[in-house]
This record gives sequence, structure tokens and C-alpha cells, in this order.
Amino acid sequence: MTADVKSSPRERLLEAAATLTYRDGVGVGVDALCKAAGVSKRSMYQLFESKDHLLAASLEERAAAYVVTLLPPADGDRSPRERIMHVFDRLASEAGAPDFQGCRFLAVQIELKDQSHPASRVAHRVKENLTAFFRAEAERGGASDPDLLARQLILIFDGASARAGIKADTPTGLVAPTVTVLLDAAGVR
Amino acid sequence: MTADVKSSPRERLLEAAATLTYRDGVGVGVDALCKAAGVSKRSMYQLFESKDHLLAASLEERAAAYVVTLLPPADGDRSPRERIMHVFDRLASEAGAPDFQGCRFLAVQIELKDQSHPASRVAHRVKENLTAFFRAEAERGGASDPDLLARQLILIFDGASARAGIKADTPTGLVAPTVTVLLDAAGVR
Repeated sequence: MTADVKSSPRERLLEAAATLTYRDGVGVGVDALCKAAGVSKRSMYQLFESKDHLLAASLEERAAAYVVTLLPPADGDRSPRERIMHVFDRLASEAGAPDFQGCRFLAVQIELKDQSHPASRVAHRVKENLTAFFRAEAERGGASDPDLLARQLILIFDGASARAGIKADTPTGLVAPTVTVLLDAAGVR
Repeated sequence: MTADVKSSPRERLLEAAATLTYRDGVGVGVDALCKAAGVSKRSMYQLFESKDHLLAASLEERAAAYVVTLLPPADGDRSPRERIMHVFDRLASEAGAPDFQGCRFLAVQIELKDQSHPASRVAHRVKENLTAFFRAEAERGGASDPDLLARQLILIFDGASARAGIKADTPTGLVAPTVTVLLDAAGVR
């Protein structure tokens, strides 16, 4: 009756890969992944071409939840400025969780050090989509330079989540005033 | 007559640890480190308590060069604003190198995921010192809130170097205008 009983070997491997790489890094071994998922190595290699592909698939699977967690609902009546601030409010909230280690999509790219790795490609695309959200809202809000503002916002997002992840700082009292200054400078309504 | 001939096993191990962990990550094995340094494992363990301690020592050794690379000379007659911009100009220049993978002191902390690891502690201290530089210049420059400005500047620094390291963006045309907006908002001369 538990999730473990219901979920398939594939789902359990995806969950184990997402959880263990977030907690321990991309160097986590195939043995540890299979053990956590309760799946044999033979079964794993029948389902995934390699550990690299399992890791990429696990990030792909987390991408939808990431978008739901961070982005405002599409049908709201909030201003572009409020919709941008929503993302940073969500980041501040996520960063308050005790097991927060920063953005998994940034961490994977930093750890793999190989932008052609299948998991790096997935992570890169997820962050490109977040940048595109910022770009669209910047344009709707009348930013003087929407491209620059979108680059600034994803820079703040990645910098703040990285620094919160390593416990060097927290977004509280930092991210909101910084984003406010940048939105004001760009003339976003 | 080469550096290799002159340098001691300890120096070669420190160099190998710095080079290989920057290129490949903190998961690099003791065998690979010893091979690159031309030192036996037995000798390595006579010089360093563990790979963790070797890694910490290699970061410690790189800290001085990091400061020289980034910070302006102490005896210059430049304004606090110019001295802050100097650091970001240097970052942009460093990020243009083909083997740039972002800030090693940030990467190590993200990769290790353990703030009590000896190497994380060294890396954390190095970045705290850079934050303290920003804080001192912010105060000298008359910033309305020097603490906030210092937190903003190190956030930009870490975000920009991380994003440049994973080839998601480049500091060019991004960091200077962003820092300018923040310095203006804080009223720094």
C-alpha cells in the first residue's frame, strides 16, 4: 500500500537518482542507486543505457515539479513585476527547508564539468526555460532591455540558491531588495 | 631544470590536487592524484593525513594567488567604487580563459555538500574574505547599507562565475551594468 509497493522499478530508480545525487553529488555509485531503489543492476541496465542516462532522466522528471514550485499560475492577474517577485519568494521559501542544497540543475552542471553530458543538457534546458520566463515577463513589464534584465534575474537566482545551498548566506533580506533595484532600474511595472 | 625537478613531492601533490579537482571535481581518486604528482601513495599519506586534508591544503595554497588576481593593490589611489569594479573586471577577464570552470572555492563547497569538510572550511573562509573586502569598500564609499551591498556583490560574483563556468552565460555586458546599478542604488562614490 506504500508508494514503494505501487511504484515501478523505473520510478524507484528515478527517485533514488534524484534524491541521492542531490544529497551526495553526481559521483554516487550505481550500487548505491540500485540498493536505494531496490532494483538489481541487471534491471537498471535494462531500463537505462547508463548511469548518465538515468541521471538525465531523473532531472527531466523533476523539471515539471520545479516549474510548478517556482512559477506563478499562468491565469493570474498579477503584474509582470509581481510574477517575477513570485519566483524569488518561492526560492526564499525553498531555501528555508533544512535539506536545501541549492538548485539541483545548477549543481549537476557544476559537478559534471561537461556540458555535453546528457544530464547537463537537461539541466541547461531547464534553466534556459526559467530565463525565458524572466525574459517574457521583462518584456511584458516594459523593461528597457529585457535581455539584460533576464540575464540579471537568472544570475541572482543561481547566485542566491548556490550561496544558500552552501550555507554561506540566505535569500532573506537579500534577494527581494536586489531584484527590486534591478526591476526599478529597468523600469519594469 | 624544470619546475617538476625542483618542486618537492608536497608541492607536486598540492599542484595535482588543485589542477585535477578543478578540472574533474572533488571525486578525483588518490591514485590519479599520486600518478599526476609522481608520488607514491605511501609518500602521500606521510605528507597528508587524508585526501580531504590534501584537498584543503591545495585550496589554502591557491588562496593567495586568488587574492592577488582579484583584488586591487592596497596602495592605489582609486575610489572604493573603482576598487569594487576592479574585482569584477578581473572576474570577466578570468572567465574568458578557455579552461575557466567557475570559482574553485564555490565549486568545492557545492560538490562536497558538507560544510564541515576541511576543504569546505578553507573555501568558505576565502569567500568570507572577499565579502569582507566588499564590505570595507562599501563602507568607505558611503554605502547606505554596507552589509547589504557586500552580500549583493558576493552574490553577483558567485552567480556570475558559476554561470560562466557552466557556459550558461558570460560576465561580459552583464556584470558591470548590474554592479553599477547596485552601487548607484547604495549611493557608493
